[in-house]
Amino acid sequence: MNPKKYINEGENLPKWDSPISHAVVVNNMCFVSGQLAVNREGTFVLGTVLEEAHLAFSNFFAVLKQSKFEKSDVVFIDIAFNDLKDLPLVNKLFCELFPEDQRPSRTIYQAEALPYGGKIKITGTAVKDIN
Amino acid sequence: MNPKKYINEGENLPKWDSPISHAVVVNNMCFVSGQLAVNREGTFVLGTVLEEAHLAFSNFFAVLKQSKFEKSDVVFIDIAFNDLKDLPLVNKLFCELFPEDQRPSRTIYQAEALPYGGKIKITGTAVKDIN
Amino acid sequence: MNPKKYINEGENLPKWDSPISHAVVVNNMCFVSGQLAVNREGTFVLGTVLEEAHLAFSNFFAVLKQSKFEKSDVVFIDIAFNDLKDLPLVNKLFCELFPEDQRPSRTIYQAEALPYGGKIKITGTAVKDIN
Repeated sequence: MNPKKYINEGENLPKWDSPISHAVVVNNMCFVSGQLAVNREGTFVLGTVLEEAHLAFSNFFAVLKQSKFEKSDVVFIDIAFNDLKDLPLVNKLFCELFPEDQRPSRTIYQAEALPYGGKIKITGTAVKDIN
Repeated sequence: MNPKKYINEGENLPKWDSPISHAVVVNNMCFVSGQLAVNREGTFVLGTVLEEAHLAFSNFFAVLKQSKFEKSDVVFIDIAFNDLKDLPLVNKLFCELFPEDQRPSRTIYQAEALPYGGKIKITGTAVKDIN
Repeated sequence: MNPKKYINEGENLPKWDSPISHAVVVNNMCFVSGQLAVNREGTFVLGTVLEEAHLAFSNFFAVLKQSKFEKSDVVFIDIAFNDLKDLPLVNKLFCELFPEDQRPSRTIYQAEALPYGGKIKITGTAVKDIN
């Protein structure tokens, strides 16, 4: 196994304004920072919840890839909504993103506010099997 | 160690409407999805905060058991409240549930809203010692 | 590796009113409970967000130290704000606390309320490289 890695930059990663890493990789785990609907230039892109969810997930998966983890390594996802009424739309997106036999665990809630006034924020943990 | 396991069904697990797993087990860790006061048929059961906490914890422990983890493996619990004034009642329940020398770490906050208009949501992580 | 350890007491740890552990250490991981602006006697100290953040981080690092983990082991931090407008001040503090090449991953949101009416709560995970 390799030493700790701090993932900050990469071809498809949004520019980061905050003094944090997009992800930290340690041993066989990857801790991914909360991803929002931000484009590669670091600008927040206001949209419908589905548009924001697509962009946030696209960032999330780009960070995973840069960390050398696969979608199938995702074990836990934390989703903060601005309005829980958006859940059915996001559940539909989940069905498209994750195959039925590899669905991560998840927790959801409605925050009082998210950065940039965003509608959705996606945070997660990925772990590689060591067998 | 065994490969990744997705815990979706089991004798005492509530039916799940959402496209997620109740838990994902990888290496020696178990990531448990946010549990609510939902009965085995998947119906939300509105109650006092203690009634909801009992049902949510009962689901949480059923998921753990189905994942072949013990209560003593729980290392971290995230509790979202609808009203933090309910904390003392839930602390009392914690004293009953966890022996004084095996208390998990915890984080708590008041969300703006929880699924089904619930009063409490319990998410957690369990890890087995590998010695 | 050592068996699971429950960190409850220590020279610089605030007294804990709640039936939880300040941290749980298992294998090479440390799960730290949500830390607030509470002094060693366990009294909440209302302040500006920076004052509260300093005290909460001081508690967070004291718990880490008592758990025999270093600041550089921190891989993930969850920050709940009472008002996200406070983010720039906390980002400045992050720059002081974490060197540019060892910044943890992070997720942030605005909760509807935090314990004691606090302005900030800091929760986190630390992992030691096992190489």
